Amino acid sequence: MSDPIDFYFDFISPYGYLASTKVEEIAARHGREVTWRPFLMGVPIIKIMGLKPLMETPLKSDYTLIDIFRLATWLQAPLSSPNPKATNSRAAARAFYWIHDQSPEIAVRFAKAVYERMWVDGQDISDPAVVVAEAAKLGLPGDDLIAALGSEQLKARLEAEVTAAVARGVFGSPFIIADGEPFWGVDRLPLLNAWLSPPGSAPAFI
Amino acid sequence: MSDPIDFYFDFISPYGYLASTKVEEIAARHGREVTWRPFLMGVPIIKIMGLKPLMETPLKSDYTLIDIFRLATWLQAPLSSPNPKATNSRAAARAFYWIHDQSPEIAVRFAKAVYERMWVDGQDISDPAVVVAEAAKLGLPGDDLIAALGSEQLKARLEAEVTAAVARGVFGSPFIIADGEPFWGVDRLPLLNAWLSPPGSAPAFI
Repeated sequence: MSDPIDFYFDFISPYGYLASTKVEEIAARHGREVTWRPFLMGVPIIKIMGLKPLMETPLKSDYTLIDIFRLATWLQAPLSSPNPKATNSRAAARAFYWIHDQSPEIAVRFAKAVYERMWVDGQDISDPAVVVAEAAKLGLPGDDLIAALGSEQLKARLEAEVTAAVARGVFGSPFIIADGEPFWGVDRLPLLNAWLSPPGSAPAFI
Repeated sequence: MSDPIDFYFDFISPYGYLASTKVEEIAARHGREVTWRPFLMGVPIIKIMGLKPLMETPLKSDYTLIDIFRLATWLQAPLSSPNPKATNSRAAARAFYWIHDQSPEIAVRFAKAVYERMWVDGQDISDPAVVVAEAAKLGLPGDDLIAALGSEQLKARLEAEVTAAVARGVFGSPFIIADGEPFWGVDRLPLLNAWLSPPGSAPAFI
């Protein structure tokens, strides 16, 4: 089997959520595994780029609300309206890496569960209590996670992951890297599929 | 026949060029015509959004250079590297509307020719001389166009087109509006195709 493909995403990104519902299916078609890598768009990436958050960008924010529901329909993925309180994915991303160090498999299940709470149920995953409750459902000790979320060690761990992502050119969510080739956006999944396919076998663009 | 679909694009946008190679084919499949509407991303749209030009945005600019060539291959469209001098599409867009008032059909041929000079031949279409030469090839009097390009009337005409585009929510290139439904990006052409298709007949996303 070839190397896994890297799937970078922010828990507060609707496009990241939509990609999460398809990325493993696409990878599996080509005998590939997926490494899930949550990161934070807010700090320091938006600052490096000199942009502002998507939903605070005039014109684009209105469009996004149309676009995500249309894509969700096409991808057959359930989607609720963005929860305006859920603007901070720090606790969820830190918890992911804490769980990952114990079990990468459970960490992926946790990531999927957090995405569902946020983007299917409309919960506020900025709230560490929501994050801890999802971890507890997967059998992880809530008190230990609460302690870890306040630790400098876990904070530094997530910062290092974000720095490493930026160093690889990651700047948006979702962002996939397969064999060094970068794919930004849920709309690039067909191109990822073509990239992973034997020459000449990928479906036409349109 | 239903209403034409509106195709907004900036001549200096590689994604606009790529879309221009496919939009009429997609529209024709569904018995639709295309209204070509060049506009300027630079003023006032980027200012309203608080963004900066794509190729001046760190991380994203590097990615774009990979992404446009990959898309061009997939769309089977010839593409040359961006000409760093070609950053201003004002003369080309003004010339388009001047030609359009004489013949909408010739204006579309002019738009395709300008896109080819810029994105196939790598010419600097910021240069009014390049723009005038393309118009002359289509039989339009170069001296009249040169005079028109310096007129307040044509300047105001383009400004009005940009203002009208922003009022409809247009903020990027390409941007297509079909029956009021907005589609931003060459990557949304498959969604446009699905939108125009009878229910249940569009190809799967991936």
